[in-house]
Amino acid sequence: MNRIITISRQFGSAGHTIGKLAAQQLGIPCYDSEIIDEVVKQSGLSPDFIKEKSEYSAGTNWFTSALNSRDPRGFSYQDDVWAMQCKIVREFAEKGPCVMVGRCADYILKDKEDIVRVYIFADMEARAKRIVEQYGESPVAPVKRLKDKDKRRAAYYNFYTDIKWGESENYDITLNSATLGIDKCVEIVKMLY
Amino acid sequence: MNRIITISRQFGSAGHTIGKLAAQQLGIPCYDSEIIDEVVKQSGLSPDFIKEKSEYSAGTNWFTSALNSRDPRGFSYQDDVWAMQCKIVREFAEKGPCVMVGRCADYILKDKEDIVRVYIFADMEARAKRIVEQYGESPVAPVKRLKDKDKRRAAYYNFYTDIKWGESENYDITLNSATLGIDKCVEIVKMLY
Repeated sequence: MNRIITISRQFGSAGHTIGKLAAQQLGIPCYDSEIIDEVVKQSGLSPDFIKEKSEYSAGTNWFTSALNSRDPRGFSYQDDVWAMQCKIVREFAEKGPCVMVGRCADYILKDKEDIVRVYIFADMEARAKRIVEQYGESPVAPVKRLKDKDKRRAAYYNFYTDIKWGESENYDITLNSATLGIDKCVEIVKMLY
Repeated sequence: MNRIITISRQFGSAGHTIGKLAAQQLGIPCYDSEIIDEVVKQSGLSPDFIKEKSEYSAGTNWFTSALNSRDPRGFSYQDDVWAMQCKIVREFAEKGPCVMVGRCADYILKDKEDIVRVYIFADMEARAKRIVEQYGESPVAPVKRLKDKDKRRAAYYNFYTDIKWGESENYDITLNSATLGIDKCVEIVKMLY
């Protein structure tokens, strides 16, 4: 039996919604922003600072900062946030069965025997439509927003893990939410538990 | 509703078995070698010749032959076999709901609305174990046999289609049969119908 379902997902692929619905229907918790909230809580640092140093950094200088702003130990703030994120993902996994969305949880927990690793993606057109529906219009064109986010997410993942984000062989299952539909994806994710 | 389930699979990933079991349980036919049998029948060429010119060519000179042995029209025997394979895959698809294993059916039928494209893979170790169980020992080490077969299958696919074999975004779903297990894969494939 798989106790933990990790979901990696492209921005706009409905991965978060699929994870949340599957968890609800299975009667287990779904963790996503809860993990960052806990990093904030345990670190005592400000939420804005953590957001800046974690996967969802809005700034474009994440890499410059990660590579240059190193303390005498050779660590950057990004490394500290990463280390804390690893610790908290493992703590959440110990609490009991759950769904974890994002946060490189698939990589952090890869040595556990009772996890199943899901990757959810969709074509650009479907994702563009979805982000406008979900988050509204923005001065930046949706395809540009998606490409930026994809690039940042993949870069973050590739920086802290030794596996390539989005390649099928790194997962137990990959799902195209645009062609399969959200309901079918939820059904399939539930079957993996 | 999806009427046609195509399965692309790595050699030794149990893709054929999963397709056959899912089709049996759904009460629909599963086509695999039947497609090549029909090419043989309709072409009037010998089975050995067709095998030599198709995906499962045992010879290492498939590419040399495909590129050099061209008739005055600019076509090779490989192209003729490919054209006939496309025609027969489409004919089988017209007959009614089915599972199709291999033969680039996912690509040949990609414009149909009622297909779902599955890719089944597994890690090298699991596949090596399986091919020895299924086909027995051989003078060639199992990992070498797998690498040769992977290379040939991917090359054939990439030669006749414009999409890359095994990349998740070319499929609706990819399944790791080693970690999910054959029974779970069968259940998931059945759900896609």
